[in-house]
Amino acid sequence: MIIDLIKKLQKRSNSILSDLLLPNNVGQFELVDAMRYVLMSPGKRIRPIISYLTADALDVDLNEIDYPAASIELIHAYSLVHDDLPAMDDDDLRRGLPTCHKKYSESTAILAGDALQSLAFETLSQIKDDYAITLVKELSRASGVMGMAGGQAIDLAASGENFDEVSLENMHILKTGALISASVMFPYIIGKNNDSHLFNALKQYARCIGLAFQVQDDILDVEGETEITGKPKGSDYKSDKTTYPKLMGLQNAKKRAKDLVDESCDAISFLGSNADTLIKLARYIIKRNN
Amino acid sequence: MIIDLIKKLQKRSNSILSDLLLPNNVGQFELVDAMRYVLMSPGKRIRPIISYLTADALDVDLNEIDYPAASIELIHAYSLVHDDLPAMDDDDLRRGLPTCHKKYSESTAILAGDALQSLAFETLSQIKDDYAITLVKELSRASGVMGMAGGQAIDLAASGENFDEVSLENMHILKTGALISASVMFPYIIGKNNDSHLFNALKQYARCIGLAFQVQDDILDVEGETEITGKPKGSDYKSDKTTYPKLMGLQNAKKRAKDLVDESCDAISFLGSNADTLIKLARYIIKRNN
Repeated sequence: MIIDLIKKLQKRSNSILSDLLLPNNVGQFELVDAMRYVLMSPGKRIRPIISYLTADALDVDLNEIDYPAASIELIHAYSLVHDDLPAMDDDDLRRGLPTCHKKYSESTAILAGDALQSLAFETLSQIKDDYAITLVKELSRASGVMGMAGGQAIDLAASGENFDEVSLENMHILKTGALISASVMFPYIIGKNNDSHLFNALKQYARCIGLAFQVQDDILDVEGETEITGKPKGSDYKSDKTTYPKLMGLQNAKKRAKDLVDESCDAISFLGSNADTLIKLARYIIKRNN
Repeated sequence: MIIDLIKKLQKRSNSILSDLLLPNNVGQFELVDAMRYVLMSPGKRIRPIISYLTADALDVDLNEIDYPAASIELIHAYSLVHDDLPAMDDDDLRRGLPTCHKKYSESTAILAGDALQSLAFETLSQIKDDYAITLVKELSRASGVMGMAGGQAIDLAASGENFDEVSLENMHILKTGALISASVMFPYIIGKNNDSHLFNALKQYARCIGLAFQVQDDILDVEGETEITGKPKGSDYKSDKTTYPKLMGLQNAKKRAKDLVDESCDAISFLGSNADTLIKLARYIIKRNN
């Protein structure tokens, strides 16, 4: 069952992340507490899971994925802390718990995010293989102005305006897609592949599951239960944010998610049985309830 | 004259930094504008200058320093944007200009800082030599919870409390010292040195000039002119921040700065004539008026 595999990989990711913030490493307790609070809150670890499963499909040793996958989750964690700040999305609740600035303070939340980003790159710098610097390049681009941070800027600037579907997709491709793409491409880099067909297929797979993930998030915002999603029901729908259900209706959004998953599966089907788990993962993304 | 050399290196650093943010690289104009505004405001470029001069002392090609030095300045620039935020030091003026969140918005300032940090690591990832990943390790540690971010957390937590000199030094060693140390150690790494005597001497030099720089900053807060320093006169002295002049009096602070500079020069005197420029740099640090 894909869900059992996902749970096993979540545990593996949690254990790696927890080790990165051991107290004997540190002097500043509140800041480290805040970083740990953010990092160890019950996240889905979807990005590390994508990396592990892609590694499996490409016959890459999962031990080589531990630190790279953790570095992506660290970037994701920092982005959540900063996105939740009053000057950004101003959210009080995340994963069912008070957001970092609510639990600690705004200044601590800003610094915790900053230090989590540094820790992401420090984690990659621990890797002894030559490909480490290529991972730094991939992750820094995915995080920066042409990736996640740029996407968040578009999202904030667009609040209140009506996005069409193309603009909405372009925003998501940067805001969440860039990091999901890095999660897929890390094992490609680590496996020292040099095959443009495989490269493009993985990029396409990543693009489609990234968008499907976002469409499903928007659907869960309408249909999900707060105690499962950890977010107040309908908070995006009620805000002036553009979401897929708002743009095209709930049924069309569901169809769009399914089409994207089909497209992602087509992209990698040439991998044969090696693609099985990635296909199951893609299908899981639109079945999940949190 | 050291000042002519410093001006030449400032120009060199500005030119490298400017090239990193060319408009054809980018899609999100306001975010990139904000990054450029922060990065190209009239900074002293003291960290790149330290790297270039240390490279010169160690017979390292200055061309190898361009990107590493720029990466350190990018981290410094991001830290200024975030430190100025209302939830942090709440400053309206920086280098004689409105701070980033005043010129743009708080959300843009948070994202600009985040993207500048990513760009720092992306810049290191452009380097083709094997030592690039060691630079990533040095810079990520200097930026993180055991470096700059940790120091800023101590500084914020201590506001209103009385620091003794040891606590004040420990805070500065993290908050500004870690990045100045990286500026000195980058050329050591790039030169592929492996000499514990040299390593320790450079660390000691960096520690002393880093602290001297901070003491001089505190002195300029009392004695400097706003139109030269770009900061309101006495703003730290009047706040509840602990500063060297407040802790030990202005004359003792001046003596402390001079002692630190002497100590820094002693640490590297064994380099003979190769140390000349670094010694001049150390003496310049406590003569500067901005």
